[in-house]
Amino acid sequence: MKAAYYEGNETIRVDECRPVQPAAGEVRIRVSHCGICGTDLHIFHGKMDHRVRMPAVIGHEMAGVIETVGPGVESWRAGDRVTVRPLDPCNDCPACRAGHAHICQNLKFIGIDTPGAMQGLWTVPAHTLHRLPDSLSLAQGALIEPIAVACHDVRLGEVKPGEYVVVQGGGPIGALVALVAQDAGARVVVSEVNPFRIKLARELGLDVVDAASVDLPALVEEQTAGAGADIVFEVSGSAAGAEMMTKLPRTRGRIVVVAIFGEAPRIDLFRFFWRELRLLGARVYEPQDFDAAIALAASGKLPLDRIVTNTCRLDELEWGMRQLEKGGEVMKVLVECS
Amino acid sequence: MKAAYYEGNETIRVDECRPVQPAAGEVRIRVSHCGICGTDLHIFHGKMDHRVRMPAVIGHEMAGVIETVGPGVESWRAGDRVTVRPLDPCNDCPACRAGHAHICQNLKFIGIDTPGAMQGLWTVPAHTLHRLPDSLSLAQGALIEPIAVACHDVRLGEVKPGEYVVVQGGGPIGALVALVAQDAGARVVVSEVNPFRIKLARELGLDVVDAASVDLPALVEEQTAGAGADIVFEVSGSAAGAEMMTKLPRTRGRIVVVAIFGEAPRIDLFRFFWRELRLLGARVYEPQDFDAAIALAASGKLPLDRIVTNTCRLDELEWGMRQLEKGGEVMKVLVECS
Repeated sequence: MKAAYYEGNETIRVDECRPVQPAAGEVRIRVSHCGICGTDLHIFHGKMDHRVRMPAVIGHEMAGVIETVGPGVESWRAGDRVTVRPLDPCNDCPACRAGHAHICQNLKFIGIDTPGAMQGLWTVPAHTLHRLPDSLSLAQGALIEPIAVACHDVRLGEVKPGEYVVVQGGGPIGALVALVAQDAGARVVVSEVNPFRIKLARELGLDVVDAASVDLPALVEEQTAGAGADIVFEVSGSAAGAEMMTKLPRTRGRIVVVAIFGEAPRIDLFRFFWRELRLLGARVYEPQDFDAAIALAASGKLPLDRIVTNTCRLDELEWGMRQLEKGGEVMKVLVECS
Repeated sequence: MKAAYYEGNETIRVDECRPVQPAAGEVRIRVSHCGICGTDLHIFHGKMDHRVRMPAVIGHEMAGVIETVGPGVESWRAGDRVTVRPLDPCNDCPACRAGHAHICQNLKFIGIDTPGAMQGLWTVPAHTLHRLPDSLSLAQGALIEPIAVACHDVRLGEVKPGEYVVVQGGGPIGALVALVAQDAGARVVVSEVNPFRIKLARELGLDVVDAASVDLPALVEEQTAGAGADIVFEVSGSAAGAEMMTKLPRTRGRIVVVAIFGEAPRIDLFRFFWRELRLLGARVYEPQDFDAAIALAASGKLPLDRIVTNTCRLDELEWGMRQLEKGGEVMKVLVECS
């Protein structure tokens, strides 16, 4: 079988790979599709060379079929269609003991800290598995992980029916947060600058404004009769987004920080005081978010196939990375792994 | 009767003043004591000249005795000992309609936007009154307003018994937040740099560390067995405090921003993502916070008399301002108004 290896210096080599025999409590999955995540692109650009062990097999947004079951695995069998929640917590640190194993203080993120899914056969702990219903294709199943991110963000943001939500950033995660919030009954406005993403997000059924040409605080104030937004999801990761996010919420409104900020931006703390705003960070997902994502995907209510703009072969992974880094006419790129 | 007028340019003039006749729904109070707040010092330094109408009578941390009751006031009578919750909301804006009248979008803060308590007789709406029990002196009653700030902060922070709390800043509000959190059953550490405030906060019965010489994140990690603080109250209003506040909390820990930040500091949003931290701004108080503050003060559990380091006459108000601006051996300065 083949695997794609990140070798540093923006280089990916596809080569033969020996399948790993599943140990006790593990399963081996024939990987069907794996999406390219922003984090994968970050790794490709060398930003996480301190963390990944090269040559590194990356990838964690996948779906596939169990090929071999290791000793002691009772609940799963060969042929089961699955996706993986790629978190391996220590179960012993203060975060795990407090019930926050998904943000374990010693968390191994499978596909970053340990080998990922960009290979034909992938061996993972059975505790990471979630079953895919037959109504979902394996290509669609590869979207469950980013949908689970969105479900986690919307759950932690406590989005309620009728609430007015602004999503800053209309990339794959922003669009999914908007779709999940809309499904939860919110009135959602997406703010984005990239013309292709604006067009695509509109085709997904979202209300999108061009952040470059619209006075967003004025628009939100007008649309909420002077109150402000109930919730802002900051998914842009930009200094402009960090500045904008405090201008939009109503008194006691919430801001959910989804984006990963490499640099500490300036934040208007006065506005937090003045309107008693609340901000919370949201990271990855918990098991119930995967369950919710699978149920939502299976319901047919999400335009999953329109989110996937490109599909490529494993030996085209570097091409896929280049498409994403250009930030052009691309949303989610899937890689066929076997 | 006399009043102290802020005339701009760091000047206060004490002069004769005609008492205002209480209109319908108002009462006139003979002001006994009025504390000098950080906001009053801010006004004295000209930072709020755009907001106050000069010559301005300032002051809002007071206690006194009702002297005259206006038409239609049923629940109060001359001789009642009271303090004032100095908020006059519009009761019509989105914030008021959402139940957040204390942060009304058109809020008049009495003593900033309208005349304050630094005068012998003060006329205010009766809806602002809270009754003082006989067990509290009127000097002690002038501390109810800042105690109510602390009660609001601790309530919004949802401090629970046994939680580990860090209070950044040991001035009057920081010390009161620490005392109220301690009364709520928390284990509290105060971080402060001013040697006099460190000494005084220790005399108040607080555990205080010198922020200049202690590695606070290491201390908190050690004292919480690697978990981090449950709650951080940021009361310092400094860039250093804004930088420190994200280093201390546990996973899903809370940060309560109490301080008023004139400039937007850099905030480590990555840490919010990484540990799923929560931040909330807290401003002034709601009626129940005044009730809680009065009950707590009347319980005798707070070292109220030690918090007051100086008492001066109305014609010494400028002297009091100078003491506070030096930041030296002074905590709360009370002004005798009649």
